[in-house]
Amino acid sequence: MTTNDEQTQPQEPSFRSDVTVELVRGAASDADVLFAARVSTAGEQSLDQAVATRDDAGADAAHAAGEHGLAKRDRGLINFLMRDRHGSPFEHNSMTFYVQAPIFVFREFQRHRIASYNEESGRYRELRPVFYVPARERNLVQEGRPGAYRFVPGTDEQHATVEREIREQSVAAYASYQRMLAAGVAREVARAVLPLNIYSSMYVTVNARSLMNFLSLRTKRDDAHFPSFPQREIELCAERMEEFWRELMPATAAAFDANGRVAP
Amino acid sequence: MTTNDEQTQPQEPSFRSDVTVELVRGAASDADVLFAARVSTAGEQSLDQAVATRDDAGADAAHAAGEHGLAKRDRGLINFLMRDRHGSPFEHNSMTFYVQAPIFVFREFQRHRIASYNEESGRYRELRPVFYVPARERNLVQEGRPGAYRFVPGTDEQHATVEREIREQSVAAYASYQRMLAAGVAREVARAVLPLNIYSSMYVTVNARSLMNFLSLRTKRDDAHFPSFPQREIELCAERMEEFWRELMPATAAAFDANGRVAP
Amino acid sequence: MTTNDEQTQPQEPSFRSDVTVELVRGAASDADVLFAARVSTAGEQSLDQAVATRDDAGADAAHAAGEHGLAKRDRGLINFLMRDRHGSPFEHNSMTFYVQAPIFVFREFQRHRIASYNEESGRYRELRPVFYVPARERNLVQEGRPGAYRFVPGTDEQHATVEREIREQSVAAYASYQRMLAAGVAREVARAVLPLNIYSSMYVTVNARSLMNFLSLRTKRDDAHFPSFPQREIELCAERMEEFWRELMPATAAAFDANGRVAP
Amino acid sequence: MTTNDEQTQPQEPSFRSDVTVELVRGAASDADVLFAARVSTAGEQSLDQAVATRDDAGADAAHAAGEHGLAKRDRGLINFLMRDRHGSPFEHNSMTFYVQAPIFVFREFQRHRIASYNEESGRYRELRPVFYVPARERNLVQEGRPGAYRFVPGTDEQHATVEREIREQSVAAYASYQRMLAAGVAREVARAVLPLNIYSSMYVTVNARSLMNFLSLRTKRDDAHFPSFPQREIELCAERMEEFWRELMPATAAAFDANGRVAP
Repeated sequence: MTTNDEQTQPQEPSFRSDVTVELVRGAASDADVLFAARVSTAGEQSLDQAVATRDDAGADAAHAAGEHGLAKRDRGLINFLMRDRHGSPFEHNSMTFYVQAPIFVFREFQRHRIASYNEESGRYRELRPVFYVPARERNLVQEGRPGAYRFVPGTDEQHATVEREIREQSVAAYASYQRMLAAGVAREVARAVLPLNIYSSMYVTVNARSLMNFLSLRTKRDDAHFPSFPQREIELCAERMEEFWRELMPATAAAFDANGRVAP
Repeated sequence: MTTNDEQTQPQEPSFRSDVTVELVRGAASDADVLFAARVSTAGEQSLDQAVATRDDAGADAAHAAGEHGLAKRDRGLINFLMRDRHGSPFEHNSMTFYVQAPIFVFREFQRHRIASYNEESGRYRELRPVFYVPARERNLVQEGRPGAYRFVPGTDEQHATVEREIREQSVAAYASYQRMLAAGVAREVARAVLPLNIYSSMYVTVNARSLMNFLSLRTKRDDAHFPSFPQREIELCAERMEEFWRELMPATAAAFDANGRVAP
Repeated sequence: MTTNDEQTQPQEPSFRSDVTVELVRGAASDADVLFAARVSTAGEQSLDQAVATRDDAGADAAHAAGEHGLAKRDRGLINFLMRDRHGSPFEHNSMTFYVQAPIFVFREFQRHRIASYNEESGRYRELRPVFYVPARERNLVQEGRPGAYRFVPGTDEQHATVEREIREQSVAAYASYQRMLAAGVAREVARAVLPLNIYSSMYVTVNARSLMNFLSLRTKRDDAHFPSFPQREIELCAERMEEFWRELMPATAAAFDANGRVAP
Repeated sequence: MTTNDEQTQPQEPSFRSDVTVELVRGAASDADVLFAARVSTAGEQSLDQAVATRDDAGADAAHAAGEHGLAKRDRGLINFLMRDRHGSPFEHNSMTFYVQAPIFVFREFQRHRIASYNEESGRYRELRPVFYVPARERNLVQEGRPGAYRFVPGTDEQHATVEREIREQSVAAYASYQRMLAAGVAREVARAVLPLNIYSSMYVTVNARSLMNFLSLRTKRDDAHFPSFPQREIELCAERMEEFWRELMPATAAAFDANGRVAP
């Protein structure tokens, strides 16, 4: 009756407690910040200066250079820009990530408007039965008031309840989805029953300034000047993205931390 | 055990096939387009000119004025701007809508980045058991290829299947959600089982240029220059928003139609 | 030879030391912040709650209400949003300003991308001979280093020099512009000789969140958490815009000040 | 009196009729469009598919591949996205340009808000005396009406007038600027007399979607669906940027042309 193999050979539901974040392209380096910032004062020489930062360095300069290969004055400039919130020099770079996460994470993610998104479509394809279930270390109990929640560990019983409820509902919902597809109902209609913990996938492209804004809101850190209360699951994405970014732009990331993780 | 009345008096699930769209504030008129456009050529007099459009009108001008009270040359200017895609004069206005729709609609909605959103939070409050189920007139069967789908009516049997599956899954999912809440599990965790057809609510603020872009992509019209294939449920929102907008900016809306519904 | 009266009756150059800022439309109030913020927790009741804030108030509540008519808990909510940088509730409003200022001010102004602009065009009209010259109280001498300049008063001699040089160059440049126009040269070519201190005019539309970002960068205040070093002439615009905004959204403006004038 | 060598050794004014556009980094390829678009339908396999487009190609596929190395179906997908205005897949890439052009060009350039800019600052450095003067082939005479101007060649006399006026004013203005600087006046004040034809320099970073929007408005082409009337000097920038972009994304550029140069 149907020629769609996927429908005649339904996959078994599977469960995950993690997210996937891959760096598809990282066109970003600390030097990008330097040339952009120095055009203010150096005009036509700023690119040369940025490139020359290390090449011209003699023995003394090399000695003065920090762990990241930048001269001390380069790191000083980046720190100054971060501290006084000169944000535009952090925009001349680009990172594309591939992310797999539950839909409730993507709902929060895509509220960040200074980014480019392309996501798997439940209208164009049959969604895979991969569902999120919290790991044992995920705090389950919320305390405090709106805007300042704290999360504390759940009991074994609570974890068992969550595990059972989420697994059962996910399996039941996907079977319902399959029955509607088998009956010839459009994917965009049938998906209505799928739960918020089903995984989706997307590409997201940001620059470092936008990423720092994302990190300031989606990670919870004691050294942050402004408090944030991200849901743990989007924080998992943010932490992975931050790791990739720190590799690409170590001096920028260090300055971000040193200045209270406030996006410039 | 809990002081939360909502949890001790759970609501019964209810089902809707429509969306709610209210205009909270419409600070928008055709005259806004005129003063913004005329500053290019009139400079310091553009505001006076825009305001004077009708006041100065003598008998002849009044006769020449169209149904919407604008002089013919005013409507001509708006049409010219639309046709040749001078978009910025359509930005000096603002409309705030209150929208209730299923989450799968909000997922599409919030991909439009030139807008302001504030939405009900499943982290901060217990979500209400209101679910979407397609009406009898909603086409259920998808034909064609990705990027150019057509939708045709479902059979009675298909409608019965969809109605039954969606209702059963919604009720079961909400009961599961309630059991987890009753067990002391955080709302943000328990909501994982809720389906994409649960209703949410939000405020969205846009200007006319952004709204036209939204309408060009989220309504399907034969008189559109570029084809669009919106999911019917977001089109319901778009149609309601367009009605409010047409009341506020009739000459702009007429020019939008007359020029193939291409956002300038 | 020409039918353009403006060219046959050239205006005399005039000089100003101030800027014009008018509020064309202010669709903005503190209550807008409340309904947008409360949708997170109140969902479908947020608009009613926002509207009812004052209506429902009995004698005690009225007594508790502050100078701006908001209940204490309303002002508390706005302060909380500002302090913890929940920015989106400050976007559901709109202000349109008409601004006249020198081109060097507009150059800085239009770098702010979250705003809508329409400006007088030197391609479409002959620019008026109105030029900026610093007032006696404008500090003329710059001290310190890039990124942290201080300005101190100029001597009488310096002021006389600036006055003379700017007036002479402005008059000479405008005469040159007129000669090229009289020779049939296109306005967009002839304007090349006009100086950066010639006035232009524009409409700019922003929301309160964007405006706070503008104010944080374009005003210099001792109570600001992050230092800013605006050029005095754009600060004149910013100060006027802030006055209008404070009238419209007094509780929001008070919270902005109370929290270090950091845009949320 | 001053330790600033630049002021004691003033440069001689020089004149140019061209612009400088360099590609600082081009992190952009047609394949970026493919993986971003295919995630809609292919989900987790889209990156593999995009990469495999050429690797998997057997003899037949290689034969079918066009001049740019993409398979026919890849080029077909890009053309479909362009034609039906699916814009987001064109955003996952980044190009940084270094541009030198007169300030009146930058004024138009920076109105494009979906881009990142860092520009030389007249507050932070003494501007160089490099000025724009139209080349002999630059049309000097404007005909028609606002919104639809045509430009036709000037006479020898008109060119002589323009050349003389612009050179004289530029030299006089720069001398005035120097006199104010020599008197100890701040750069940001003294620059008020500098004309709009003085050169500045900046870095600008865009993605292909934003660039296509820029090109659709800032180049004048007979094969464009929507008419544009760019000033010739910004068109010079746009043409150079387009050349670099065509090298990086030839199939995308071909589809842009084939579909009326309408930005998707």
